[in-house]
Amino acid sequence: MAGLITLITDFGTRDHYVAAMKGVIWSTYAEARIVDLTHEIPPHHIHEAAYFLFCVFPWFPKGTVHVVVVDPGVGTARRALVASLNGQFVVCPDNGILTFLFRKFGLEEIRCIENARFTRPTVCKTFHGRDLFAPVAAHISKENKVPSDIGSLVTAPVCFEFPEPEFISSDTLLCTVIHIDRFGNIITNLPEELIAGRVVRKVLFGDTIIDKLGQTYADVPEGESLALAGSSGFIEIAVNAGDAAKRLGVKVGDSVKVCFSQPHQKPKVT
Amino acid sequence: MAGLITLITDFGTRDHYVAAMKGVIWSTYAEARIVDLTHEIPPHHIHEAAYFLFCVFPWFPKGTVHVVVVDPGVGTARRALVASLNGQFVVCPDNGILTFLFRKFGLEEIRCIENARFTRPTVCKTFHGRDLFAPVAAHISKENKVPSDIGSLVTAPVCFEFPEPEFISSDTLLCTVIHIDRFGNIITNLPEELIAGRVVRKVLFGDTIIDKLGQTYADVPEGESLALAGSSGFIEIAVNAGDAAKRLGVKVGDSVKVCFSQPHQKPKVT
Amino acid sequence: MAGLITLITDFGTRDHYVAAMKGVIWSTYAEARIVDLTHEIPPHHIHEAAYFLFCVFPWFPKGTVHVVVVDPGVGTARRALVASLNGQFVVCPDNGILTFLFRKFGLEEIRCIENARFTRPTVCKTFHGRDLFAPVAAHISKENKVPSDIGSLVTAPVCFEFPEPEFISSDTLLCTVIHIDRFGNIITNLPEELIAGRVVRKVLFGDTIIDKLGQTYADVPEGESLALAGSSGFIEIAVNAGDAAKRLGVKVGDSVKVCFSQPHQKPKVT
Repeated sequence: MAGLITLITDFGTRDHYVAAMKGVIWSTYAEARIVDLTHEIPPHHIHEAAYFLFCVFPWFPKGTVHVVVVDPGVGTARRALVASLNGQFVVCPDNGILTFLFRKFGLEEIRCIENARFTRPTVCKTFHGRDLFAPVAAHISKENKVPSDIGSLVTAPVCFEFPEPEFISSDTLLCTVIHIDRFGNIITNLPEELIAGRVVRKVLFGDTIIDKLGQTYADVPEGESLALAGSSGFIEIAVNAGDAAKRLGVKVGDSVKVCFSQPHQKPKVT
Repeated sequence: MAGLITLITDFGTRDHYVAAMKGVIWSTYAEARIVDLTHEIPPHHIHEAAYFLFCVFPWFPKGTVHVVVVDPGVGTARRALVASLNGQFVVCPDNGILTFLFRKFGLEEIRCIENARFTRPTVCKTFHGRDLFAPVAAHISKENKVPSDIGSLVTAPVCFEFPEPEFISSDTLLCTVIHIDRFGNIITNLPEELIAGRVVRKVLFGDTIIDKLGQTYADVPEGESLALAGSSGFIEIAVNAGDAAKRLGVKVGDSVKVCFSQPHQKPKVT
Repeated sequence: MAGLITLITDFGTRDHYVAAMKGVIWSTYAEARIVDLTHEIPPHHIHEAAYFLFCVFPWFPKGTVHVVVVDPGVGTARRALVASLNGQFVVCPDNGILTFLFRKFGLEEIRCIENARFTRPTVCKTFHGRDLFAPVAAHISKENKVPSDIGSLVTAPVCFEFPEPEFISSDTLLCTVIHIDRFGNIITNLPEELIAGRVVRKVLFGDTIIDKLGQTYADVPEGESLALAGSSGFIEIAVNAGDAAKRLGVKVGDSVKVCFSQPHQKPKVT
């Protein structure tokens, strides 16, 4: 069974850019199974791409090649990378896209794409997606491995700074909003496992207090807000049948305080 | 040839939710052919999902598994279903998504998903799409049948109330708008076959009269409105090269009156 | 390996239209590999569809069938076409969609779709995408050729008028904006090869002067504009990490002047 090549970009589908990448992949590897994951990363938002990649990675089978192209520095001296982890591969510019994956799992092997044998003969300086990342992904998927002559080993991929949850008192964590989803759910940078053994008592956005906790949206009446452990493993704030981000006027990067009861109690949010 | 698994959701593609479902399906059934049908059902709009499913169902080949996830009650006591009809399958929450299919065709067999052998080991209470519906669809597609031990038979799936066209005088039907499409075409709940043998004379939205009838949009000059039998078998109102819903200020759920001439005449709209 | 069938439409994915086309293709040719290229052509914008097709065509392998449905004249006397070029095929209404391909490459063979054996038994007058173009594409992909009995040869497909770059003085070309992409990059109708041997000195939109030239976006500081040769081979105007079309208030169809230095100098933009 031919391997999967997933596409994660900020290209949208109005333009022909994604289509051109698909054509190039199939011209190199006719059997490839290409999968659109998203083309709706907001233009140039490397953080969002890094978060998206981190969230989908655990669900894909070995052999999958993820092509992630959010690339404001295309055509500059920034490096182009191939990374391996547990039998899967990521092909992307070296601009922070690997940040969350690298921080959580490490990466087994990262190489710089240097060998022109794996790219198109001419690489346009504004479209490495088509001329460099697409053909490299096709080669890797076909061989199901990273060719060792593709380029030199990289030990430190570019990672962006991102705030970690931080205790600001014995019972309060200062956290950050990392994503707002389509439904308006507010996803924080607080991993569920970090609070195991503690009871979330309330969540604060400025003066707004959310003191209802639950396991699913419908644990509160329609239109009411609650905190819960979301499906990607982070604490999130939602409104049942409503849009929490709009309701609370919250956006990515905003601060949120999470207050706990004493640690010897059993966790309530799990 | 591996079977088709179609996806119909309100998840959009900005978030990683659809991608996670795809990963889970392929992790269970590597050969699956996954097809995006839509992820643009408006959030929580069960009616729109039911209409979408109803419209696409007749066109797909036997063996197709349709996964429909518009699921505001995820994690509550609402049931999860598998339905069979004429060799195709639908996997969805029991919240009304089957309404139009069930009303028109009946369904040969409907079962509740109860056997944890077919789901992921841990089912997150906010994401049954990934942990329950995706793996169940993969199993059914692989076996090309519903395993009889998946759960108990269901005779009455949840169906929502929906107004049927109703005669309010001998020559006038009171109908309802069930869908506005991307082009602004206004689709009513009046099936073409219901008016066979009658001539549509005019269509009324409040004080607005549409008295031009046709078989295609260009049967009237650009910018003019007409009524016609649409491609899904319902009477619709359109503006040639324009947006009828915006022009007429009409939305889903609005009433529309359809007036006929006498039934002994030959039908004009077909 | 089954051939590829690409879809380029103005249908969006909110409605079931694209899904119905997919179902019909698979019902005719179960092994078909269907690829969404775009469904976001603005409604009825034949020019945008023609440009999209022109841009993606060179990147796809032989045997690919491109189904392009932007069809405001559906159900009228306008013809339905199949065109061949270099082992690839296009199936589309005869309304100008072939304009750019035909002008640049010619087309080896164009036939009118007339033989009802290749369409669905009943062809709805408002949805040729489903009932005519989809099944024809499935047949052509399956056979990897255009059946000679599909219909008569066409020598002159409908082409729309489109301005070519024009010298308005010895050193100035009057050009036209043909596309604005998702990033706000402004793509002109000036092919890079037309200016080989000349140096672009500046680009003018009304009173706005762009006098920075480069090879990629980051050749100027963030927020500054420049002209460059884009990835599709046309001269474009961009703002590094910004939206040039919004910044400059430019839209498709607007005029732009490109001024050169003397032709004996070496080209700067390539």
